[in-house]
Amino acid sequence: MSKQIDPCTLVLFGASGNLSRLKLIPGLFRLDAAGRLPDHMAILSVGRGDVAREDWHKEIKGMLDAKFKNGYDKQVFERFLNRNHYHANPPTDPNAFEKMRDRLSDEKVFPQNLAYFLSVRPTDFAPVVEQLSAVGLLDESKYWRRVLIEKPFGTDLASAQDLQSKITKHLKESQIYRIDHYLGKSAIQNIMLTRFTNAIFEPLWNNGHIDHVQITNNETLGVGERTTFYEATGALRDMFQSHLLQTLALVAMEKPKDLTPDSIRAEKIKVLESIRPIDLENFNKQVFRAQYAAGRVCVGDGHGENVPGYLEEIKRDGLGDTSFTETYAAVKLFIDSPRWKGVPFYVRTGKRMHEGNTAIAIRFKQSPLELKQGQHHNWLIINIQPRECIKIEMESKIPGLDIATRTMSLDGAQRQQGDETIDSYETLMLNLMEGDPSQYLHISEVEAQWRLVDQIVNAWAKDKTPLHQYRAGDRDPKESSVIFEAEDQFWRYSIELGGDAH
Amino acid sequence: MSKQIDPCTLVLFGASGNLSRLKLIPGLFRLDAAGRLPDHMAILSVGRGDVAREDWHKEIKGMLDAKFKNGYDKQVFERFLNRNHYHANPPTDPNAFEKMRDRLSDEKVFPQNLAYFLSVRPTDFAPVVEQLSAVGLLDESKYWRRVLIEKPFGTDLASAQDLQSKITKHLKESQIYRIDHYLGKSAIQNIMLTRFTNAIFEPLWNNGHIDHVQITNNETLGVGERTTFYEATGALRDMFQSHLLQTLALVAMEKPKDLTPDSIRAEKIKVLESIRPIDLENFNKQVFRAQYAAGRVCVGDGHGENVPGYLEEIKRDGLGDTSFTETYAAVKLFIDSPRWKGVPFYVRTGKRMHEGNTAIAIRFKQSPLELKQGQHHNWLIINIQPRECIKIEMESKIPGLDIATRTMSLDGAQRQQGDETIDSYETLMLNLMEGDPSQYLHISEVEAQWRLVDQIVNAWAKDKTPLHQYRAGDRDPKESSVIFEAEDQFWRYSIELGGDAH
Repeated sequence: MSKQIDPCTLVLFGASGNLSRLKLIPGLFRLDAAGRLPDHMAILSVGRGDVAREDWHKEIKGMLDAKFKNGYDKQVFERFLNRNHYHANPPTDPNAFEKMRDRLSDEKVFPQNLAYFLSVRPTDFAPVVEQLSAVGLLDESKYWRRVLIEKPFGTDLASAQDLQSKITKHLKESQIYRIDHYLGKSAIQNIMLTRFTNAIFEPLWNNGHIDHVQITNNETLGVGERTTFYEATGALRDMFQSHLLQTLALVAMEKPKDLTPDSIRAEKIKVLESIRPIDLENFNKQVFRAQYAAGRVCVGDGHGENVPGYLEEIKRDGLGDTSFTETYAAVKLFIDSPRWKGVPFYVRTGKRMHEGNTAIAIRFKQSPLELKQGQHHNWLIINIQPRECIKIEMESKIPGLDIATRTMSLDGAQRQQGDETIDSYETLMLNLMEGDPSQYLHISEVEAQWRLVDQIVNAWAKDKTPLHQYRAGDRDPKESSVIFEAEDQFWRYSIELGGDAH
Repeated sequence: MSKQIDPCTLVLFGASGNLSRLKLIPGLFRLDAAGRLPDHMAILSVGRGDVAREDWHKEIKGMLDAKFKNGYDKQVFERFLNRNHYHANPPTDPNAFEKMRDRLSDEKVFPQNLAYFLSVRPTDFAPVVEQLSAVGLLDESKYWRRVLIEKPFGTDLASAQDLQSKITKHLKESQIYRIDHYLGKSAIQNIMLTRFTNAIFEPLWNNGHIDHVQITNNETLGVGERTTFYEATGALRDMFQSHLLQTLALVAMEKPKDLTPDSIRAEKIKVLESIRPIDLENFNKQVFRAQYAAGRVCVGDGHGENVPGYLEEIKRDGLGDTSFTETYAAVKLFIDSPRWKGVPFYVRTGKRMHEGNTAIAIRFKQSPLELKQGQHHNWLIINIQPRECIKIEMESKIPGLDIATRTMSLDGAQRQQGDETIDSYETLMLNLMEGDPSQYLHISEVEAQWRLVDQIVNAWAKDKTPLHQYRAGDRDPKESSVIFEAEDQFWRYSIELGGDAH
C-alpha cells in the first residue's frame, strides 16, 4: 500500500527548535533507514543563525546519537547526511526569501517539488506563506509545492478564518496540510479500519444498539512549566478542540465511499458539522469544567508523589492569584444524523487524573434477555493509551447449577512484539511528501471544531461562578456526572473489568 | 435462581451399574454437600441382587472414596447415608414391583413424590414403565411421578415412536425426562445465555451477517473395546443424532419468550423441524462419511502413539472383515427459516482425529471494506472442549506506516479459578427433582432428529461404495471438503488463530 514519492525537497522551518531536533530529523532518518525516502530527496533545514553544513551535520549526529542509544546504520547515516543541507534565513534580512529561492534553484542539489514544514510560532504561519509566495516558491506551474502548518490553526473561529483567508491568497486547499499529530498515530488510524474492515461492528454501530459513547483523554501530568501557554489555552482548546473531536469524528463518521483523502475527509467533515450546538439554556447539564487542586499522583514506579494545585503553579510563575482556566473538561455532545439520534457522546479530558488513559468506550443497550435487574451492559473498549488493545465485555453463564451470568471480558492486543513503533510525525511527513492529506485537517473540520469550542468558551467567559475543584490524582470530579443522560451511566476507567465506577 | 424441590424419593434403577457408581451416586453426594437436596429426600437404589443396607452403605463409601481422593465431609456423609436405601428387584420374581410399591409406601422413610432414573438397558425402558404403572407407582393423583429415560430413545424414528407409544400409555409427556447428558453441561447451557443476555450478538445472528456455521465434536479416542456397540451405531447415531443436533438447535433457535421449559423447548423443536431434509439427488455434496485407518495419535503427554485402524479393531473382536460403519461424519444442513435462509451449517464429528475439540465456529460475511483480496473473515468461536472460552477474530491495523490489517484475536475464558465443576448428571438429576425438563428432550425433538438421521442412514445402507479412509491422528479427510458451499470455506480447527487450514 506504499505510495510513490516524487523526487522532492523538504524545507524545514524552525530546524533548530525542539520538535525538529527530537522528532523531525530523527524521524526523517528512520524513514531513510526504512527505505521510505526516494533517492532524489533533499532536506533543507532553515534557521535564523548561520551554521556551516559540516557543523549542521555534526548537530544531526548529536540528535541521532541522543535518540538512538543502541546505534544506527553507518551507511544510512552517510546517505542521510548527503541529503541534509542548512540554510540561514535571518529575520532582519529583507532579501532573505529571495536568497532562499536562489539557493533552492540549484536543481542538482534540490529536487524542485517542495514541501515546507512550518515548525514556527503560530504568528509566523501567514508571514512565511506570504514571503514564500512573493518569491515564487509556492508556484505549482511545474512542480508541486505543499505547506504543512503546525497546530494550532487559530485560537478560535475568527482567528482561524483570518489565517485561512491570508494563506489562501497564496495557496489552494490542496496545498495546505494542517497538522493534528494525533491523526498520525497508528492506533487512531486503526479506529476507522477496525470499524470498516470487520463485518461484526458496522451492524451494531448505531442508535439501535449503542447506548452511549465515551471518548477519554486523561493524563496524570500537570501543566508543569507551561503555565503561560496553558493559562491562555485550557483543556478545551488544548485537547478537546483537536484530538478529541477528531477521535469523535472517526468513531461517528459514515463509511467513506473509498479510502481516498477526499472521501475520508468528506465524511469526517459531515460528522463534525452535524454536532448539535450546545444548548445554552441547559449549558450546565452539557458542559462541565474543573481545575486540579493539590494532591497526590501516582508516578512511574507506582509510588505516590505530592503535587501542587494549578493555582499554586500559576502563582509560582507570577501569573496572578485567580484562574478560570479548566484543567478538566467534560462535554456531552449529540450528533444530528439518523445513525446517532439520541446517543450521547461524552467527551472528557483532564490533567492530574488518577490514571493516564486514552480510550473510546462504547456501551451497548440492554440485552434481549435480562436475568437480573441492572445486568451489566456490553461494552466495547478501544484502548489507545497506555496499551493499544480492544476489549469486549459480555455476559457469560457462571459455571455451575444456577442459570446466572457474570461479566467476562474478551481481550486482544493490537500491538505484537516486533511491531514497528512509528512516531506520528514520521507518518505525517511521509504523507506530506506522498501528497496524502487524509490524516491532515481540512479547513471545514477546523472551522467546525472552533465553532463548537467558541460556544463553550464564550459561555464560560460570562460565567463567573467558581470552578469545581478536584484533588490531583483523583478520578473525575463527582459533580461531572451532572452531564449524564441516564442515572445508570458512569465514567469508565481504563480497561478494568465491568463498571468498577458504579 | 435455585428452585424449590419438593420432598421426594429418587428411585435409581441400575444402581449397581457403572454410570450409577461413577457419576450418579457421587453426584448426589455432591448435591447433598452443596445443600441442594431437601431435608426430606431419600434415594432408593434398585438392583437385581440382594444387598443389605449396611453393605450398600459400605459400597457407597467405596464409590465416594474412589471419586473424592481429597476426602469429603463426614457430617454430610452421615446425612447422605441416612438418605440411602437399597432394594432388590430380581427379574425372576413376578411380584417384584408389588414388593417395591410396598417398600416405597412407608411414607416416613420415602417421601411420596417419586423420580425414577432408568439407568437400564434400552430394551427395559418400556417394560419398567409398564410394571411401575401396573402397580400404581406412576399415579399422580396425590404426588408427582417422573421417569428419566437414558439415551438412546430408540435407534431410529420407528423404534423411538414405538417406545413413545408404549410409555405414553402410562405417562403424560410432562412426566417423561428423555436425557441427553450434553444438555446438562454448563457450557452448552451457556450457548443460549451468551446469545440472549448480550446485546451485541443478536443483531448479527442471522443470514444478513453470518456466512456459515460449523459445529464440531472431534475426539482423539478410537472405539476402544466398544466395538460391538459402535459397529451397530456409528458416528451419526452416536454423536450427530443427539449432541450435535441439540447444539445446532441452541445456536439457531429464536429467542424463547421466557425461560420456562416449555418456551425453550418450543423454540428448539421449531428449529429441528425446520431443518431442510437432505437433498437425495445431491446426497454426496451434503453428507460425507469416513472411517479411520491405522495411524498415530497424540496422547496426553504430547507423545505420538501408534494405533490400529477401525477395521483391525473389528476383526480383533471377531466382528467380521468389512465394515461400513462411519467413524467420521460431516453433514451440511440448511434451516428453512427467514433467519437462516442460505446459511449452511456444517456439522461434523470424528473419532481418532488430530485433536479433541467441541466447538461452534461462526464465520461472518465479508466486511464493508476489503483492503486486500481474500481478507480474513471475522469469526466467533464458542469453544466447549477442551477449554470453555470465547474468541472473536477480527482485523486490526498493522502498526506502522502502511494502511494494512492483520488478524487479531479477542479471547476470554468462561471458566475462572474456583468455579464449581459440576458433572452434567448432577445438573440433570437436580432438574429432574425440580420438575424442570428444559434440558431434557421433548419427543418432538427426538422425532425430528431421527427423521433426519434415518434419511442419511437409509441412503448409506443402499450405497455400497467403499468408505473414505483417514489415518488416525489426521485432520478431516480432504475429500470431506466436497460438502462446502463456497470455495473459500474450510474446516476450522480448535481455536488456533485465523484460518490455519487454508
